[in-house]
Amino acid sequence: MELWFTEKSNDSVGLTLLIKEHLYHKESKYQTIDVLESAYYGKVLVIDKVVMLTERDEFIYHELLTHVPLQYMENPLSALIIGGGDGGTAREVLKYRSVNRVVLVEIDEEVIETSKKFFPTLSFSFDDKRLEVVIEDGAKFVKETDEKFDLIIVDSTDPVGPGEVLFSSEFYKDCSSILKDSGVLTAQTESPFDLVYRPVIQNIYKNLKTGFKTVRMYLGSVPTYPFGLWSFAFASNRVDPLKEELKNPFIPDGLKYYNRELGRCVFNLPNFVKEIIDET
Amino acid sequence: MELWFTEKSNDSVGLTLLIKEHLYHKESKYQTIDVLESAYYGKVLVIDKVVMLTERDEFIYHELLTHVPLQYMENPLSALIIGGGDGGTAREVLKYRSVNRVVLVEIDEEVIETSKKFFPTLSFSFDDKRLEVVIEDGAKFVKETDEKFDLIIVDSTDPVGPGEVLFSSEFYKDCSSILKDSGVLTAQTESPFDLVYRPVIQNIYKNLKTGFKTVRMYLGSVPTYPFGLWSFAFASNRVDPLKEELKNPFIPDGLKYYNRELGRCVFNLPNFVKEIIDET
Repeated sequence: MELWFTEKSNDSVGLTLLIKEHLYHKESKYQTIDVLESAYYGKVLVIDKVVMLTERDEFIYHELLTHVPLQYMENPLSALIIGGGDGGTAREVLKYRSVNRVVLVEIDEEVIETSKKFFPTLSFSFDDKRLEVVIEDGAKFVKETDEKFDLIIVDSTDPVGPGEVLFSSEFYKDCSSILKDSGVLTAQTESPFDLVYRPVIQNIYKNLKTGFKTVRMYLGSVPTYPFGLWSFAFASNRVDPLKEELKNPFIPDGLKYYNRELGRCVFNLPNFVKEIIDET
Repeated sequence: MELWFTEKSNDSVGLTLLIKEHLYHKESKYQTIDVLESAYYGKVLVIDKVVMLTERDEFIYHELLTHVPLQYMENPLSALIIGGGDGGTAREVLKYRSVNRVVLVEIDEEVIETSKKFFPTLSFSFDDKRLEVVIEDGAKFVKETDEKFDLIIVDSTDPVGPGEVLFSSEFYKDCSSILKDSGVLTAQTESPFDLVYRPVIQNIYKNLKTGFKTVRMYLGSVPTYPFGLWSFAFASNRVDPLKEELKNPFIPDGLKYYNRELGRCVFNLPNFVKEIIDET
């Protein structure tokens, strides 16, 4: 018998994957968590029926969320990750020797536990002594902390349900206030091919602009995310990636997607994508 | 009742589309041709069960196949299109006022007839007096013609069945011999995410290198093609897009994907894609 998992990108488009085994199902306090063993993409983490990552292509999303900002920094010391309970974003940030402190604030401990059990190539980052895990609402943490960071990464679920507050104007203002002067925030901001999400994306960029002087979008290809093209926000009060050069003298070995030529080019957007954010 | 059309990218991954109506089915001499009315992407042209184009996203593929090379040319006069019976590639080339002759060699007249009936936003290009249509095998045409062209575009189906010969070493050598000195050939070369096609892609680039001094790959995001990321070859005996500047003083208005910043950046490849062609 063939089992297929279909993730609907919207009411009328879906990605369908042949599944060898449904490895895990859990109803956590916040969401449903599933792990599937797929035939092509290896193990798949699914939260609230939406693919969060697959073993085969997770490197793309995680490299883009981290190396794009880190290469614009001369000597990044500290990072705050909001969400990212699978450990993939932390893994990439911790590749930088200059980074001596990473705080990961995940609301749902069950995501971390699931990753530790099923995704060791991501969750080994939880063994790094430079990483502190805080189980808390990210928005609350950002509002209350006294610490400042070089980099904030919002590695959240979609802007519906528990993730919604992480796309609000108030949250971005709070992030801006705990970012060092030349710090950068990056965040995942959905697919620009998604007509339903178009106003949602525009709203995210509007909100970002209330918190930061410079807000840019960049893009990457993630085949298991809806429409295969994903957008990310780069926000800062000092750094404009379209005007500045890459500054970091260090780049980790063995990256599978990111390289420095690409690291500037990802900000050059197709015309139809420019239009989306020009309207904000 | 809901009808869904699922295109298998391979044995274990597929894209599935909600279909309002199956508008047309034809067994031509060479292949099966279907037209579907989809809920999200508008009308879809399907050949031998594979999505060739959709009304909503065809602009991406067609703009990339044409404007990327045309912007490297100061004064392009002539183009040869192999395949492209839907008319989309011709539409983009004919946007250049300097172009006074386009020859489109399509093996299957039924593709042109289908496009004229169902895809007027592409097939209106057949009314342009600068366009000559030849119903013939593209490989045969290239071998026998005495004419030389500034640009050759191989807008073919996949390298299986009738399209296979259009990826051969012999075909590329013949193309090279009918290209003007500073001419360029572009071709669609499948998805670099496709592990099954990886050796096929490597073979295509090996074959291209037997015909041309410079062979580069570039990329674009096409959500209705397998894995959402598509590759294209840029081959020339004179022009290296990584070293030269864009030369065309003219750029058409109203492009939805291509712009000049992107036109150079599309050649900067993710590391895992570089590896594929570095091995050739």
